Amino acid sequence: MLLLLHRPVVLGLRQAFRLRSSPSRLCVQTCSTNNSFQPQHPSPNFSGDNYSRRGWKVMGTLLGLGSVLAYHDHRCRASQESPRMYTKEEVSSHSSPETGIWVTLGCEVFDVTEFVNIHPGGPSKLMLAAGGPLEPFWALYAVHNQPHVCELLAEYKIGELNPEDNVSPTLDISDPYANDPKRHPALRVNSQRPFNAEPPPELLTENYVTPNPIFFTRNHLPVPDLDPDTYRLHVVGAPGHQSLCLSLDDLYKFSKHEITVTLQCAGNRRSEMTQIKEVKGLEWRIGAISTACWAGARLCDVLAQAGHQLSDTEAHVCFEGLDCDPTGTAYGASIPLARALNPEAEVLLAYEMNGQPLPRDHGFPVRVVVPGVVGARHVKWLGRISVEAEESHSHWQRRDYKGFSPSVDWDTVDFDSAPSIQELPVQSAITEPQDGETIESGEVTVKGYAWSGGGRAVIRVDVSLDGGLTWQVAELDGEEQSPRKAWAWRLWQLQAPVPSGKKELNIICKAVDDSYNVQPDTVAPIWNLRGVLSNAWHRVHVHVAP
Amino acid sequence: MLLLLHRPVVLGLRQAFRLRSSPSRLCVQTCSTNNSFQPQHPSPNFSGDNYSRRGWKVMGTLLGLGSVLAYHDHRCRASQESPRMYTKEEVSSHSSPETGIWVTLGCEVFDVTEFVNIHPGGPSKLMLAAGGPLEPFWALYAVHNQPHVCELLAEYKIGELNPEDNVSPTLDISDPYANDPKRHPALRVNSQRPFNAEPPPELLTENYVTPNPIFFTRNHLPVPDLDPDTYRLHVVGAPGHQSLCLSLDDLYKFSKHEITVTLQCAGNRRSEMTQIKEVKGLEWRIGAISTACWAGARLCDVLAQAGHQLSDTEAHVCFEGLDCDPTGTAYGASIPLARALNPEAEVLLAYEMNGQPLPRDHGFPVRVVVPGVVGARHVKWLGRISVEAEESHSHWQRRDYKGFSPSVDWDTVDFDSAPSIQELPVQSAITEPQDGETIESGEVTVKGYAWSGGGRAVIRVDVSLDGGLTWQVAELDGEEQSPRKAWAWRLWQLQAPVPSGKKELNIICKAVDDSYNVQPDTVAPIWNLRGVLSNAWHRVHVHVAP
Repeated sequence: MLLLLHRPVVLGLRQAFRLRSSPSRLCVQTCSTNNSFQPQHPSPNFSGDNYSRRGWKVMGTLLGLGSVLAYHDHRCRASQESPRMYTKEEVSSHSSPETGIWVTLGCEVFDVTEFVNIHPGGPSKLMLAAGGPLEPFWALYAVHNQPHVCELLAEYKIGELNPEDNVSPTLDISDPYANDPKRHPALRVNSQRPFNAEPPPELLTENYVTPNPIFFTRNHLPVPDLDPDTYRLHVVGAPGHQSLCLSLDDLYKFSKHEITVTLQCAGNRRSEMTQIKEVKGLEWRIGAISTACWAGARLCDVLAQAGHQLSDTEAHVCFEGLDCDPTGTAYGASIPLARALNPEAEVLLAYEMNGQPLPRDHGFPVRVVVPGVVGARHVKWLGRISVEAEESHSHWQRRDYKGFSPSVDWDTVDFDSAPSIQELPVQSAITEPQDGETIESGEVTVKGYAWSGGGRAVIRVDVSLDGGLTWQVAELDGEEQSPRKAWAWRLWQLQAPVPSGKKELNIICKAVDDSYNVQPDTVAPIWNLRGVLSNAWHRVHVHVAP
Repeated sequence: MLLLLHRPVVLGLRQAFRLRSSPSRLCVQTCSTNNSFQPQHPSPNFSGDNYSRRGWKVMGTLLGLGSVLAYHDHRCRASQESPRMYTKEEVSSHSSPETGIWVTLGCEVFDVTEFVNIHPGGPSKLMLAAGGPLEPFWALYAVHNQPHVCELLAEYKIGELNPEDNVSPTLDISDPYANDPKRHPALRVNSQRPFNAEPPPELLTENYVTPNPIFFTRNHLPVPDLDPDTYRLHVVGAPGHQSLCLSLDDLYKFSKHEITVTLQCAGNRRSEMTQIKEVKGLEWRIGAISTACWAGARLCDVLAQAGHQLSDTEAHVCFEGLDCDPTGTAYGASIPLARALNPEAEVLLAYEMNGQPLPRDHGFPVRVVVPGVVGARHVKWLGRISVEAEESHSHWQRRDYKGFSPSVDWDTVDFDSAPSIQELPVQSAITEPQDGETIESGEVTVKGYAWSGGGRAVIRVDVSLDGGLTWQVAELDGEEQSPRKAWAWRLWQLQAPVPSGKKELNIICKAVDDSYNVQPDTVAPIWNLRGVLSNAWHRVHVHVAP
C-alpha cells in the first residue's frame, strides 16, 4: 500500500535519473557523519580530506539545500524519543535480500528491503549501499537532495545508530598504509595495500566525467601525506640553464590549461586474461578506466622555462613520485621528450581534478597527465622532472608495463625486447547489462564505453546480440573532441529488440578508432604474462526472462 | 649429367640469392629487345619510358658488364648459322611442366623445363617468366648478369625468335587507355582498364625497397602523358597571397627531401573479404602494398611559400590529379591541413622514386606522398593544390575509401556517417610459403611483411604453425626508423621445425605496432561493403611432403 502511494514520486525520480548527459561535477550530501566524500574547494591551503561540518552546512545553504538539512535535523530530533539502537556491525550484516537490506543516513537506520526493486536508479545501484551509509552514494547523485526523497526514506526507518559505536580506529604507526585516505564504499577493491580499486560497472558509465570518489585508483605504494605549503617540484634544467624548484603558487603562475582526459590502467580487463592462463597482476575487471577534467600547467611551458627544447637525439622526460617503498625507491616513469614538448599533446602538470584539488589518492598536490597514454606514465605526487638521454630506469618503465607474445613466459621473458607501453590500443566494454544478469524480453539496452590511445577518436561501436554473427551500430554519446586530440572516451548505447524465442544472449561489443584500428576477437592470442593490454571484444552472457 | 656438372655454380647462385638485406635499387639487364624495364636516370628532360640501346650499353660497360654484353653478342652471331625459328605465340604456349617451359633472352629461345626445379632462386620465381622474356626478371636481379649464368643458360637453347614476329601493335586512338605505359610481365593484373596490378608474393618481399617495375599500381583512370617541360603545378595561395604556378625546375629549387615510405591500397587483401560475402572492388590479394624511396619537395615548404599557415579551424589540403575521366572529372583527394603543414609528417611532392624520375604509372612527373596514410591520398600526376575549409568533394574522398560495420549494405549505407580513411591500421601478410603449396618436412621458412599507419612502428610479428594455438616470434628485418616516423614496412621471417607427423600446417601471422594495436582474428566481423581495411590475421594452408 505504502509503496503504491509513492509511485508518482518514484516515476518522477526515474525521469530525473535519465538525465545523464550533464556530468555531475559537484558532489553534495544532506546530513553526514562521514566527511570523506564532501565537495572540495580548489584552494592550496588545506589538506584534501579535512573539512568542517560548518563549512558543509554553509555550502548546503548556498545551494538552496537548507530545507533538506533543516528537515533532516528535525527528523533526528523527533526520533530521539525512543529509537531502537543498532551497531554498525548489525547494519552491515543486512546486505542481501535473505538478511534484509539496511542502510543508514546520518544517525538513522532504514530497512529498504521492500524498496530496492522499485528504486528509480535500479536495484543494483541501491544494493551498492546495502549494509552501510547512503551518503557516499547520494554525494554522487544530487537528485537525492530533495525533501520528498527524505520523506520517502523516512517511511522505512527502523531505528538509529549507537553513538558509542562511532569511535575512530587507532592509527597503527607500524603500517605504512595506515595514513592512506578513506575511500568510497562503492569501489571494488582489488588490493588494499597498496590500494587499488575500480568503480562497479553500474556506476562506471553513469557520468561522462567520473566523480572523483569513484575514479579508479591505481597505487603502487602508500599514499604520501604532502603539505601543500611546503610542497616543491624540482625540474632539472637544460645544460647552461638553472634548475627550477617550484612551489604550488609558482605552478599556478603558468597559464592554466584544462582538458578532459580518460586514464586507463594497462591492466584493465586483466581478469579476462586470467581465465585463459594465470598472469601476474591485480584482477582488474572492466573498471580500471575513468575520465576527469584535469587542470594545471602545461609541461611544455614548464620545460621551456627550464631551458629545454627538442633535441635531435631521442630524449625522454623522466618523472619521479614522492611515494616511496621502505628502501626509499620512488615510483618513476618517463615519456618521450617530443611528446612532452609538443603543445598539441597537451601534457599537464595537473593540480585540479573535476574542479577540485587532486584527491590524495590521485596525486595531491600535483600529478602528470599524459593524454592518450597508459596510466602508468601519469606519475602522481610528482616530485622531480628531468630530461634524460634514456627512458626512466625505474622498475615500472623497464621491467613492467610491456607487452609480449603469448609464447613468452617468466623463464624466457626478455624485458628489453619490448618497448614500454605508451599509447594504448583501441578498447571498449559493456557496463550494462552485466554478465549472468537476467534481462526482460522485449527490448534490451546495452551500454558501455569506448576509447583509444594517442588521441585517436572512436568512430564506431558495433554490438552483437548473437555472439558475433550479426552486428548493430551503437549510438555514441559524449563530448565532441578535436581531431587527433580525442583524449576522452565515448559512452555508447544500443536499444534493440530481444530476438524472439531467445532464452539467452551472448552480447559483444567492439570499437573502431579513426585509424580504423579494431579490437581483436579473442583473448588467448593477446594473452601475455603480465596480463596487460587486454582489449579483445568484450562479451557478456545474459538470460532472458521467460 | 649436365645438371650435375653445374651444381657448384647453382649452389653459389643460391648463396648470392640469399643476400637480400641490401635493396637492389639499380635494375640492370644484359641483352634486351624490350626497353621498358631499363634503369632510368634522374633527369627532368626526358620522357620516362624512352631510352636508347646505346645508353644501355654505356651503362653496362660502366658497371663492368661489358663482358656479359660481348659474350651475348657473340652467342647471337654464332647461333645464326642454322637456328630453328619460333614465334612469340609458340613460346608463350610453353609455360607449364606439361607443355614444357620455354623462355627467351634477346633473340634466343630456351627450354628450361629441366632447370626449373634447380633454379637457385626457387622454381616459383623462374616460373614467373615461363613462356616469355627473361629480361624483365633479370632486370630485377643483378645476380644474373655474369658470364657463367649465360653459359649455364646456353646449354638449354633450342632456337631463336622469328624476327618478323617482332612488330609493334598499332595504336587504337579510340581507346583512352591505348597510350598507357608498358608494364612488367610479373605483375598480377586485377584490371587492365584502368590498370591495376600487384607484384606476386614470390617477388613482393624479395627486396626491402620494391623495384619500380613491380611496385603495385592502382590507377583510377587512363595514365596521362605529360610533358615535363610544360608541366605546371598550381598551388592556390592563402588569402592575401599570390597563387603559385610551379614548373618542375621551380619544384627542384625547394630543399630536396628523401624518405622511404610504404604505400598500401585500402583494398589490399580484399579477396579475403570476398570469400565471406561479395564486395564491390578489385580483387587485390596481398600485394597492394609496396615500398619505395621517394624524393621531392616537402609540401609544408611549398604551402608556406603560398602563405599558408595552421589555422584554428579544421582545414584540409585538396589535391587534384591530371588524370581525367571522359567528362573531364579529375581524380581528387585531401588530407588535413595539420598533417600537411607538420614538417614531422614529411608529406612530399615527390618527383623521384628509388633514385629515378617517377614512372608514368606512379605519377610522372609529380605525385603526393603522405607517409602513414592510405594510398588513395597520394594523388598522382598532381595538377593542383588548394587549402579548403572542407575535405575534397571528390567521389574518392566522400563516396569511397571509408569503412562501415558488417551490417551496412548498399541499401542502408550512409557515406557521410564514416570518416574518410587516412591513417591505416596495423597489417601483415605471409609471402612464403603460399597457400596450397607443399613444403618439405624438417624445417619451414615463413616470410612476409608487416606495416602500420600513422608512423607507428611494427614491434613484433607472431607466427603460428598450428592455426593459432601456439605462437612464435618472427625475426624482423629492414631499416631502423625514427620514433613516430616508421613510414616503411618491416620484412620478417621465421625458421622453425615442422612439427613431426604433421601432414599439413595452418600458418598464421599477426603483427603488433608500437601503440600495441593488433590485427583482428577473423575477416567476417570487419567485412564491409567496399572490401577495404582487410587486415585480419593472414592464413596460409600448406601440405607437408611425406
